[in-house]
Amino acid sequence: MPTPSSSPHASVPTSHAPVAVIENLYPCIEGGRHPVKRIVGERLDVFADVFKDGHDVISAVLKWRPAGGLRWFEAPMHHVDNDRWTGSCAFESVGRWEYQIEAWGDTFRSWKKSFAARCQAHDPDVPVEALEGARLLREAAMRAKSTGAPDVCAQLADISELLARLPADELLEVLLSDELQTLIDRHPDRGLSICSQTLRVIVERPLARFSAWYEFFPRNAEGRADKHSTFRDCVTRLDDAKSMGFDIIYFPPIHPIGVTHRKGKNNTLTALPGDVGSPWAIGGPAGGHYDVEPALGTIDDFVWLVGEARKRGLEIALDFALNCSPDHPYVKTHPDWFYQRPDGSVRYAENPPKKYQDIYPLNFHCTDWQNLWSELINIVLFWADKGVKVFRVDNPHTKPVAFWERLIAEVQRKDPDVMFLSEAFTKPKMMQVLGKSGFTQSYTYFTWRESRAELQAYCEELTRSDMRWYYRANFWPNTPDILPGHLQNAGPQMFRIRAALAATLSSSWGLYSGYEFCENDPYPGKEEYNHSEKYELKQRDWNAPGNIKGFIRELNRVRRENAAMQLYDNLVFHTADHDKIMCFSRCTEDFSSRVLCVVNIDPKETASSNVHLDLPALGLDSGRPFKVHDMLHGSSYEWSGRTNFVSLNPNGVSMHLFRVEQV
Amino acid sequence: MPTPSSSPHASVPTSHAPVAVIENLYPCIEGGRHPVKRIVGERLDVFADVFKDGHDVISAVLKWRPAGGLRWFEAPMHHVDNDRWTGSCAFESVGRWEYQIEAWGDTFRSWKKSFAARCQAHDPDVPVEALEGARLLREAAMRAKSTGAPDVCAQLADISELLARLPADELLEVLLSDELQTLIDRHPDRGLSICSQTLRVIVERPLARFSAWYEFFPRNAEGRADKHSTFRDCVTRLDDAKSMGFDIIYFPPIHPIGVTHRKGKNNTLTALPGDVGSPWAIGGPAGGHYDVEPALGTIDDFVWLVGEARKRGLEIALDFALNCSPDHPYVKTHPDWFYQRPDGSVRYAENPPKKYQDIYPLNFHCTDWQNLWSELINIVLFWADKGVKVFRVDNPHTKPVAFWERLIAEVQRKDPDVMFLSEAFTKPKMMQVLGKSGFTQSYTYFTWRESRAELQAYCEELTRSDMRWYYRANFWPNTPDILPGHLQNAGPQMFRIRAALAATLSSSWGLYSGYEFCENDPYPGKEEYNHSEKYELKQRDWNAPGNIKGFIRELNRVRRENAAMQLYDNLVFHTADHDKIMCFSRCTEDFSSRVLCVVNIDPKETASSNVHLDLPALGLDSGRPFKVHDMLHGSSYEWSGRTNFVSLNPNGVSMHLFRVEQV
Repeated sequence: MPTPSSSPHASVPTSHAPVAVIENLYPCIEGGRHPVKRIVGERLDVFADVFKDGHDVISAVLKWRPAGGLRWFEAPMHHVDNDRWTGSCAFESVGRWEYQIEAWGDTFRSWKKSFAARCQAHDPDVPVEALEGARLLREAAMRAKSTGAPDVCAQLADISELLARLPADELLEVLLSDELQTLIDRHPDRGLSICSQTLRVIVERPLARFSAWYEFFPRNAEGRADKHSTFRDCVTRLDDAKSMGFDIIYFPPIHPIGVTHRKGKNNTLTALPGDVGSPWAIGGPAGGHYDVEPALGTIDDFVWLVGEARKRGLEIALDFALNCSPDHPYVKTHPDWFYQRPDGSVRYAENPPKKYQDIYPLNFHCTDWQNLWSELINIVLFWADKGVKVFRVDNPHTKPVAFWERLIAEVQRKDPDVMFLSEAFTKPKMMQVLGKSGFTQSYTYFTWRESRAELQAYCEELTRSDMRWYYRANFWPNTPDILPGHLQNAGPQMFRIRAALAATLSSSWGLYSGYEFCENDPYPGKEEYNHSEKYELKQRDWNAPGNIKGFIRELNRVRRENAAMQLYDNLVFHTADHDKIMCFSRCTEDFSSRVLCVVNIDPKETASSNVHLDLPALGLDSGRPFKVHDMLHGSSYEWSGRTNFVSLNPNGVSMHLFRVEQV
Repeated sequence: MPTPSSSPHASVPTSHAPVAVIENLYPCIEGGRHPVKRIVGERLDVFADVFKDGHDVISAVLKWRPAGGLRWFEAPMHHVDNDRWTGSCAFESVGRWEYQIEAWGDTFRSWKKSFAARCQAHDPDVPVEALEGARLLREAAMRAKSTGAPDVCAQLADISELLARLPADELLEVLLSDELQTLIDRHPDRGLSICSQTLRVIVERPLARFSAWYEFFPRNAEGRADKHSTFRDCVTRLDDAKSMGFDIIYFPPIHPIGVTHRKGKNNTLTALPGDVGSPWAIGGPAGGHYDVEPALGTIDDFVWLVGEARKRGLEIALDFALNCSPDHPYVKTHPDWFYQRPDGSVRYAENPPKKYQDIYPLNFHCTDWQNLWSELINIVLFWADKGVKVFRVDNPHTKPVAFWERLIAEVQRKDPDVMFLSEAFTKPKMMQVLGKSGFTQSYTYFTWRESRAELQAYCEELTRSDMRWYYRANFWPNTPDILPGHLQNAGPQMFRIRAALAATLSSSWGLYSGYEFCENDPYPGKEEYNHSEKYELKQRDWNAPGNIKGFIRELNRVRRENAAMQLYDNLVFHTADHDKIMCFSRCTEDFSSRVLCVVNIDPKETASSNVHLDLPALGLDSGRPFKVHDMLHGSSYEWSGRTNFVSLNPNGVSMHLFRVEQV
C-alpha cells in the first residue's frame, strides 16, 4: 500500500481537449451514483482502462481526498495488462472521501524512450533530439522552481545544460537513470492531463466491518415477568453480554409506547390492563421520539447507561423506528405529516385486508416533506448527541430510499462515527439499494438459508459480487420477529450450529437474547416466538442451566483473536464430500492469520468425509505438511496435501475452527 | 413493438423527493457516457430495475425523443421478474435521439388493488375508501379536462359521482374494468413520478448495418500500368462492382499527392521520375484536403462520378486521412498546427528508429487546437456537401478520441446520413472506444482469425458482448495494406472461403480490388502486397480468367435476398464434429427469414461430419422434419432432428448457404 503523500499539484480546470481515455473504472457502483465503503486504513484497489492515441508513454496516478477537499493525496498507478491500470489507496479518517484517476502523455518518458532508440541506431538526429530533451529538462526545472524546490531545479537545469552542450550519448546513462526520473516525477508535465470522473467512498470505523451484536429488551433486563426493569437495571446484562464477547448492545425502541389500540400479549388486538405494549408503537402521553418510556427511567438514566456501556468497551445501539402510535405528539402538532382519510381521520397502516390500527404511517411525500425529513434527521442527531453512535433502522424499505440517503449523509457529515444497520427483510434489489444508499450494515437472508448449497451460494453472492463494495452483511440466527423453522423446538446443537455459521461466515453477526437459552417455542403456525417479548414481560433466568453462553463466548473469542475473521470479503469455500459438512476459510492477505472452519450442519447425525482444500487460497505449499489447531477444542492435527479426513459428531466435536500454520 | 405516440405529458422539473428507484439501465455504455446505436425503425429493448418502498403498485413508461426535443414519445413498460422492467421503442428518423424511463407509484391502481381486497373481506371501511376512490377519479377527470379531453373528463366525473353515492361494491365491476383503467391511463397521476438518467442513441440509415464495400484506386480504374486513369474512367469499375453486388465504392485519398520525400515503388525511400506516390501522402502544389489530384481530374469530374454512382444505387466513400505531406498548404499557412523540432524544422512522423519523412503529423493539442479541429471538421463537411456520405477514416487511433467524438457529432448534426468507418487496427480497447465515440462501422481482427475456434470466439465477442451496442464490425479479407498470411500464394478456394466467411458472419463486409482475381503475391517477409498499388500503377485485366467475381456476386445476392443476413447481432453458432466445418445461422426474430451456413474452412481437404443444430435458435420444432435449400447450388435436402450429415469438398460443393424452411 502506498504511503499517502500530499500532492503538490493543485487541481485546475483544463482548457485543453481530452488527451487520453480513462474508462471502465472499478469499483464503480451504478456509474458512480453510489459510494463504495471502506473502513479507516483499509486498502482500496482501483482499476481503470487508461490509454491514448499514438505511441506516447502514459503515466497515471490515483488521487483521493476528503470529499470536496482542496488537495489530493496521490499514488502512482501501474499498467497491468491490455491497457488496464491499477493503483491503491487507503483513507486515514472516517467520513466521506472521493477518488479519481489522472493520466497524461508523459513527455519526458516518451522522449527518453525514443531517444534511447535513436542513440542505439546512431540516428543522425541525435543532436537535435538532445536539444529537445534539454528543453524538457529545462521546463521540469522551471516547474520545480515554481513549486518551491530550488535544489531540484538546479539539478535539472545542470543536466539540461550538459545535454545541450556535450555529446548526448555520453549522457545516456544519466538520462536513463532512475534518479533523474524520480526528480522529474516530482514535477511532471501535467499540462495536458485528463481526470476521470470522481467516485465517492464512505469511510467508517472498524466496528462497521467487524462487530458482534446482542439485542435485549431493557424493560426485561432482570428477566422478571412481574416487574418492568429500568435502564438502571441493565448493567448486569451489559456485563453478561461483554463476557460473551459482544461489542454492541442493541435495544428495541426505548420511547413512550402508545396507549390507543395498544396490542396485547401475543399480538392480540386488545391490551389488558398492565400489558406493556410493543415498543415499536412509538408515542404516548410522555412524548415521542425525543423521549423515553417513563417506566424505563429518564433520559439522564439512559445517558448514564450509555456511559456504563462505554466503560466496558460496549456501545449501545438504538432502534430507529419511524412508527407513530395514534398518541404520538406529531399526530396533533403535524397532522399534515400523515395520510388523511376522506372522512378526515388519520390513516393507519394497512396492507388490506390486514390492519395495523396502532400505527400511523408518515407521509414522506406530503407537502411539508422537507420539514418532516429534517425533523426525522434531527431525531437521530438528538440521540447521537446523547452518545448513541449505532442505529438499527426498522423497516427502512417502507420509507423512501432517497430519505435514507439524505439522513445518513447528513448525520455522518456531523458525526462520521455514526453507523446504521438496515433491517430490511424484503426483495433483493431493495435490500441492495439501501446498502448503496449508505447503510453501514444490513440484515440478510442468512436466517433462512439452511442447506450447504444455499449458504455457500448466498455467501458468495455477498462477498464476491459487486455487493461487497456497498453491502456489509450482518448475520442473525434470530430476531424478536423471527424464530426460523429450523430453530423451532430445536435442540441446543442446532442453536450452536447456527451461531457458529453466523459468527464465522460473516465478520458481523448478532443474537437476540433468549438464543443463548435455546428458546425455541414458536407461536403456532408462525415464524414468531410464542409469548413474544415484543408484547409482554418475560420471566427468564439469565443463567439457566443448559445455556450455550460459554460456546458463544468461544466463538467471539476466536473472532477477536484472529485478524482473518475481521475482514469482510475474504471468504473461500472448500469442498467436502459429505454434503452436511461445510468447509470454508478466511485468511489475511499475507496469510499471517488463517482460519479454516469445518462444520457439521446436521445437528443429529455424525458426518465423516474427506475435505479437499484449495491450498493456494490458504497460502499453503502443496508439497509440505501443515498444522491445523482447533481453537474450540485445543486439539491439533498434522495435515498434508489437498485432501484430509474429518469426522464430526453432534454429541462431541461437531465443528473445527482451525488456526492453520505452515509447518 | 409499440407504436410511438406523442405524449401529452410535458417534462417538468420535479420539486418533490424521489419516490422510487430506477437503476441498472440496460443498454447503458460506460454509465451513459456513450450512445448506443440503432438504425431507423430498429427496435430497442430497454431494461431497468424499478421499485419503490411500501406496497404501492408501480407504473413505468419508456420515453424517447430526438436529442434535446421538447416532447417525448412513450410506451408502457412491463414487469419481467424480480423488479426488472422492460419496454421497447424504435426511432423514426436518423440523427441523435435520447431515452429515459419514468416511473411512479400508481395511485389509482394501488387504490383499486386494496379496494378489491376490502370488498372481498367485507371491510367496514369500504364506504370511506370508496370516497377515496371517488376523489382519485375526480382528480383524473380534472387532469383530462386540463389536457383537452372533455369527453374523458365527463366519463370519469360520472363514475366518481356514482362511487360517492351508490354502494361501492355494486360498482366493483366498473371499477375493475379495463375500460376504466384505459381512460385513467390516458391521464395518469404523475405528480410524484421520477425519471431515470437520459441515455443517448445514434440512429443511422440501414446502410450503417448492412453494407458491402468495394475498394479500388481510381487512378488504376483502367488497369493500366502505363496510364493514370481519371474519375471519368471509373464508370466501368462502378458497373462491375454493381454487378458483383456491392453498395459502397471506397476510394483511397483522391487529393494532391506530395512531392517532397515521395515514396517510390514498393515503398522505397526515393521516388523515380514518373512514380505516382502514395495517395495517403496528402498535399502538393495543387492543394490539400479540399482539392483533388490533378491527374484524376477536377472536383467537377468527381461530383459527376458521385452522380453516376448514385444513378446505379451506389455510394462513393472517401478516405479521410489526416496525413500532411511536407508540401501540404497547411505547412505554410499553419506551421503552428505541426510539431516543431528544436532546430525550427517541422517534425515528421517517426516511431524511432523508423522515420516517415513524407508525412508531417498534426499536433492536435497545439495552442490553436480549436481552429485546427474546426478546420478538419470543415473538410468532411466540404466533401459531404459534394455528395459524399460515407468516409473511411484512416488510422483514427493515432488521433485523439475526443477529436473523433466531436467531428462525428458535428458532421452528423448537419447531415445525419453521413457514416464513418474506423480503420483502427490496434489494441482492443482503443478500437472499442472509437466505436463508442460514434464511428458507424469498424474494421476488425477478422482478417487474422483463421481457425474455427478463433472465428467463433471473436464473432461471439462482437455480437454477444456489450460491443454489439456500439461496435458494428465490418469484415475485410484484405486491404491495400494487408495480404494476410493465409492468402499469400493461396489458391482460389481460400479466397472463396474467406470471402464467404466475411460476407456471412457479419452484415457488413468489404473487399479491396484484386481479391476477385485472387492476387496473392506478398512483398517478401511482409504482410503486404508486392508491387503495391499504393505506390504504383498496376496492370490488371478486370475480366481475367480464373476470377471469382461470379462467386462474390452470389454471396451478395444471398445477403440481399435474405432479411436475416441484414441484421447484426443475430449470429448463432452450431456444433459440427469436424473442426474444419463451421456451422452458423442467422434468423429474423419471427423466423420468416432463416439462413444456415455450413462452410468447410479447409481449402484443400474434404470435410465430412455431423452437424448438431440448436433447433430452437432456428425456430424449428424438434419433432418435425425441415427443408434446407442451398442458395449457392440450388440443391435441397430434407433434414430432420438436431443431427444431420454434411460432406464438403473443396473441389465441389465446399459450403452450403441454406435457406431453412419448416416443412
